[in-house]
Amino acid sequence: MMKPLKPALLALALAAATQFAVAADPAEDPAAEKPAPYKSWMDILAESPAADWRPLDPANTLYMELPTGRVVMELAPGYVPLHAANIKTLVREKYFDGLAILRSQDNYVVQWGDPEEDEKKSKSLGTAKANFDPEFSVAVSKDTPFTRLPDTDVYAPQVGFGNGFAAARDGDGKQTWLTHCYGAVGVARGNDPTGGNGSGLYVVIGHAPRHLDRNVTIVGRVVQGMELLSTLPRGTGPLGFYEKPEQRTPIKIIRVAADVPVAEQTRLDVLRTDSPTFAAVTEARRNRRDGWTVAPAGAIEVCNVQLPVRPSKD
Amino acid sequence: MMKPLKPALLALALAAATQFAVAADPAEDPAAEKPAPYKSWMDILAESPAADWRPLDPANTLYMELPTGRVVMELAPGYVPLHAANIKTLVREKYFDGLAILRSQDNYVVQWGDPEEDEKKSKSLGTAKANFDPEFSVAVSKDTPFTRLPDTDVYAPQVGFGNGFAAARDGDGKQTWLTHCYGAVGVARGNDPTGGNGSGLYVVIGHAPRHLDRNVTIVGRVVQGMELLSTLPRGTGPLGFYEKPEQRTPIKIIRVAADVPVAEQTRLDVLRTDSPTFAAVTEARRNRRDGWTVAPAGAIEVCNVQLPVRPSKD
Repeated sequence: MMKPLKPALLALALAAATQFAVAADPAEDPAAEKPAPYKSWMDILAESPAADWRPLDPANTLYMELPTGRVVMELAPGYVPLHAANIKTLVREKYFDGLAILRSQDNYVVQWGDPEEDEKKSKSLGTAKANFDPEFSVAVSKDTPFTRLPDTDVYAPQVGFGNGFAAARDGDGKQTWLTHCYGAVGVARGNDPTGGNGSGLYVVIGHAPRHLDRNVTIVGRVVQGMELLSTLPRGTGPLGFYEKPEQRTPIKIIRVAADVPVAEQTRLDVLRTDSPTFAAVTEARRNRRDGWTVAPAGAIEVCNVQLPVRPSKD
Repeated sequence: MMKPLKPALLALALAAATQFAVAADPAEDPAAEKPAPYKSWMDILAESPAADWRPLDPANTLYMELPTGRVVMELAPGYVPLHAANIKTLVREKYFDGLAILRSQDNYVVQWGDPEEDEKKSKSLGTAKANFDPEFSVAVSKDTPFTRLPDTDVYAPQVGFGNGFAAARDGDGKQTWLTHCYGAVGVARGNDPTGGNGSGLYVVIGHAPRHLDRNVTIVGRVVQGMELLSTLPRGTGPLGFYEKPEQRTPIKIIRVAADVPVAEQTRLDVLRTDSPTFAAVTEARRNRRDGWTVAPAGAIEVCNVQLPVRPSKD
């Protein structure tokens, strides 16, 4: 929303953001303690200690290769152990290779899987399971840590982050689930709640469809390459399905990062969501004093929280 | 999220949605009154009376013609009289014709305006004003009706709809403002809050950046053609600005619909947001009993509320 389109003015605006905080002066009461100088989230990240970051876990990272490039996804086995394992089986048995993106519905989802309409001719799931209990929510455990946001939420009693994923908990904190934020990866299913196995997956490309929470199993999120999905032409059929095969984007291959030669890996670090830096970045976005903002929000919605990613330094 | 990719199965799923409600039976207490049969939002819209719809007002509708087609936007003069008038002046004096989309930032905004970097060479605003008071919020009046949602909101004390636009009110109901939902059209500005005049406009193409509410003047929303904006290649410069002129999408022309020959108009009806049908559709989405949903949300976030649009029947 920065008006200045020009790099020079843009730089100025960013500089002003820093200057603003320094210049802020509680003139009415000289004895009052000055508020801490405001640091933008960019400043905070730039100064963050290495310990507040973690590399993506290659064992739970997927690379989807499209003709336009690579989409990097991280799975969340702590929240969905059965589905994460099943999807990795599908990936390793080359289930997705040669399949396609079948659907792109504006402000909703992109979805991929087997385009074959005749179920008898559908691609074999190999040793992966076809049906098992959904993991719409799971019992809270040591595998589902939770850094709670102090903010309210329209859809859940508690919201926050665990292991780098936006998550929610019920009122008594016994069940937890991942939330449908932008970039969330979910398991498509039919009316049968046990019918989702990971052979059809979707990614949220619009405003968070939070009504899907606890109705679908979310298995992780896109960490890099969202723009390769979000800019796909929308399908013109019902629900954004492509009407012609040639409109579909082919999936060249999906691989588990750990199976990819190191030289071909996309090595990324993500900010730990239980770190002081994450808390500081989120607060800097909740209450912006950046020289541009005239009315700081004072709150942040879970799907507006930034999940910073950067190339690994090694 | 419907798993079935096949039209046949898809139809089945929709049929099941209706059957489900009829089959629902409060068996535990035969004397209990049965809940009303569930109707999906699609059923509700199909049965809605004509009086619950209104045509877009041609005097406050803009057509932006891109090489890929037409984007239809409706202005909200009740909330932003000064900016709506200024933008129509800019449009009628051909300010935007030949300019370009300058920025596409993933999960954020698309923005257009004058690409000229040298302000001395910038396109003249003609008789439009260059600076005036922002309309970040306005006093509640007869021009800002409000059908309040019963739901909570993370960012505002009250949320609802007025004249077809998502809106919020402060705690005592004296000030109101339009909210940054998907498709909202806003006025770009620099650090000076009075610097926005409508010569640079943006559209939300991702998860609602509600922290911008009351920091920018929202002038309306895109009613048709969002996919022409949301699928634009993302810019690779800071904030998603395009780095090379040839990456920009040219704007052929922007016109006020009233100035366009009737035969060339895009005649659309929008559901009145103060109508019973709108309330019913919203409730059907808040509490889905459609045969697919296993955990109805029980609430709806203002930016997840659907604003139905259909071709006019005349």
